[in-house]
Amino acid sequence: MEQLVSLCKRRGFIFQGSEIYGGLAGTFDYGPLGVALKNNIKNLWWKQFVENRTDMYGFDAAILMNQKVWQASGHVGGFSDPLVECSNCKSRFREDQIDTSKCPSCGKEGTFGQARQFNMMFKTNVGAVENEDSVSYLRPETAQGMFVNFKNILDTFHPKLPFGMAQIGKAFRNEIAPRDFIFRVREFEQMEIEYFVDPRNEKTVNEIFDALFEEQMSFLKKIGLDSNKIHKIEVPAEDRAHYSKRSVDTEYDFPFGQKELLGLAYRTDYDLSAHMSSSGVDLTYFDEENKDRFVPHCIEPTFGLDRLILAVLSDAYKVDGEGEDARVFLAIPPAISPIKICVSPLVKNKDGLVLKARELFNDLKKSFGAVVWDDNGNIGKRYRRQDEIGTPFCVVVDFDTLGENPELLDTVTIRHRDTGEQERVAIKDLKKYIEDKIN
Amino acid sequence: MEQLVSLCKRRGFIFQGSEIYGGLAGTFDYGPLGVALKNNIKNLWWKQFVENRTDMYGFDAAILMNQKVWQASGHVGGFSDPLVECSNCKSRFREDQIDTSKCPSCGKEGTFGQARQFNMMFKTNVGAVENEDSVSYLRPETAQGMFVNFKNILDTFHPKLPFGMAQIGKAFRNEIAPRDFIFRVREFEQMEIEYFVDPRNEKTVNEIFDALFEEQMSFLKKIGLDSNKIHKIEVPAEDRAHYSKRSVDTEYDFPFGQKELLGLAYRTDYDLSAHMSSSGVDLTYFDEENKDRFVPHCIEPTFGLDRLILAVLSDAYKVDGEGEDARVFLAIPPAISPIKICVSPLVKNKDGLVLKARELFNDLKKSFGAVVWDDNGNIGKRYRRQDEIGTPFCVVVDFDTLGENPELLDTVTIRHRDTGEQERVAIKDLKKYIEDKIN
Repeated sequence: MEQLVSLCKRRGFIFQGSEIYGGLAGTFDYGPLGVALKNNIKNLWWKQFVENRTDMYGFDAAILMNQKVWQASGHVGGFSDPLVECSNCKSRFREDQIDTSKCPSCGKEGTFGQARQFNMMFKTNVGAVENEDSVSYLRPETAQGMFVNFKNILDTFHPKLPFGMAQIGKAFRNEIAPRDFIFRVREFEQMEIEYFVDPRNEKTVNEIFDALFEEQMSFLKKIGLDSNKIHKIEVPAEDRAHYSKRSVDTEYDFPFGQKELLGLAYRTDYDLSAHMSSSGVDLTYFDEENKDRFVPHCIEPTFGLDRLILAVLSDAYKVDGEGEDARVFLAIPPAISPIKICVSPLVKNKDGLVLKARELFNDLKKSFGAVVWDDNGNIGKRYRRQDEIGTPFCVVVDFDTLGENPELLDTVTIRHRDTGEQERVAIKDLKKYIEDKIN
Repeated sequence: MEQLVSLCKRRGFIFQGSEIYGGLAGTFDYGPLGVALKNNIKNLWWKQFVENRTDMYGFDAAILMNQKVWQASGHVGGFSDPLVECSNCKSRFREDQIDTSKCPSCGKEGTFGQARQFNMMFKTNVGAVENEDSVSYLRPETAQGMFVNFKNILDTFHPKLPFGMAQIGKAFRNEIAPRDFIFRVREFEQMEIEYFVDPRNEKTVNEIFDALFEEQMSFLKKIGLDSNKIHKIEVPAEDRAHYSKRSVDTEYDFPFGQKELLGLAYRTDYDLSAHMSSSGVDLTYFDEENKDRFVPHCIEPTFGLDRLILAVLSDAYKVDGEGEDARVFLAIPPAISPIKICVSPLVKNKDGLVLKARELFNDLKKSFGAVVWDDNGNIGKRYRRQDEIGTPFCVVVDFDTLGENPELLDTVTIRHRDTGEQERVAIKDLKKYIEDKIN
């Protein structure tokens, strides 16, 4: 884990937030490679869950919402952690995360009184006046932004059940103890779906639930996660929210233990009914076949984007060999690797080579975008640098490319990250060759 | 403008935020078509300014930052509007936006005292304790997230000047008077670049400034804005920030007047120097050729994403004809239109037609993603529906497609949004035909 965090900083994936000012706990900044990886994962998700389907409506609701949304959803009253304070050093902790007999900060015994409930939403005021009426919160989940727009989807697209809404966006939780790198943070990104179903056919609801779980698994496979590290947890009734009829967590073997990666919850009509009664707006669905109205039920698959990135990186982190010669590489699937191709001339001081390599670089960059140029140091070192950031293909233009061996004219060496193997490929076939490997 | 706002709501582009609870002023939710349009514009921008260049480093910094960032940048002390309060009805206004002789709300005269400065940053507290030390702000601009990471880019990528950092992300301003739909809002999205240059060669700096302006114009052209509505404003010295050496605003003829769309500012070394002195961290650049160190200067091109969307929509909004027969269409460039293709069978109750059309639909959807199916009502009404949301191509499968006229076997009608013209195209050529029109 330490090596991974260090690599992330050293190579420009992820930095501590506000680092030059000593940081701000629980916030992280994504550097050039991190943002490329993140965008690739987001695009893949959006393709699978929105664009490739005909039953899904993409959404992007505001982070700041009317406080009534959070009163209705139960977050103002209930979204809180039990917090204890040390009477000696005033340090605060989540009660369930420490042994309260002795303060972990100052070491004094018996300093903790009763826990109080600490709401995890960040509070702010909207408008010129600071009072109770102007209070708003940074959303702790993207879900509610979709529930409160349910009627807008009905009115504008007239969809038939079952159908879903999908959103990618930031959410915020004022965690008392952010930890484990980008796993438990105060600002994070979610990819969420609210999938609405007719509750009257339990068999269909169960089938849809299972199908959504399979879709989650298929996504994890696409981003390259090892299926042996993935665990399906049927959440027992006593651990579920009171309104939840079924809940399946997907846990993953992170370097710091088996922890939640995805959620899938059958939330019944809890949210829509709560917003309907709080807002007074009719959120029922009219069934044209049966000519009746009801509040649809909802199944919610949730993906934590930052956790997925952490899972991808820790799964992809491989070491080949030992000691000083050990080769570190990130075996990220080509479809989501931040850089797809590195183009190099074999040596940097030969004009013909450089010219030919530049030409190829420009051409590949036009097609693939995420293509870099590297002519620093020897080829072996360049490979190592690219291995460490997960670039699947290194293309080298050498003297044979220029025709030193006439049979190899206009061919290049393509070297594979995971195996270290090299192949000779004709320049004219290169694009297709790489495209096939990516898809 | 009213018609556009109504179309945006009616067809699922943009809704008022928290609408079922009476809204939250200055926030908007993007529906399925709005989020598709937004993503297309973001992707186009990222391609032009990040992926297609070799001198640009993509970034994604956190929204919540250490409060010291905003002290150093001058936002805590200076980012404020002059606010006046009516002593009669307690309404508050921006002093520069009203005639203060008479309250616009209650109508009483002489009720305004002296203006006080109202900071436009949203304030919150991070962590379990609410005090001055735990104060944080929702960033009012994405720029500072890049300045405070300048050293991280130097250390990880070792770039040579000139180079830039680029970021797309949310920003927040507690506007006293949000207005003009998505033009002046409290939560918005920015696309910003901080481009770092060596200040010692003034000629080069000027050339880079001009080149960045041209890049801005080329982007506006790509998203289809009418160049006659675009105005280049050289901001005179007395209107610029004290540290700014040159500033060019790009204004656009919105339905409510000529207003700022883009900014381009030569911010000198103001930001990096401020953060260097506040944080104590060295933010100088080492020039390998001259073997010396200096703080680079910065040129900042800024794009307000929501404003761009409003400009695209209002520019694209066209009415053909008059009265009840008037045809409303959105002439959005195909590259960014939310839906690219609508596929229809000529009539819906002929199995052969529907089968053939479905096959084509699935095939096109696999390639283009943003493809819809419509078999409701007559063809004319379908065209109208697609016109109104800016779908550039409607493809219709008819009896000739099935070979009723053998010469037209396996051809379809493709109908063009802007002209209403129809063409006959062979199915096998269709993908290429549409791809060419999109690019």
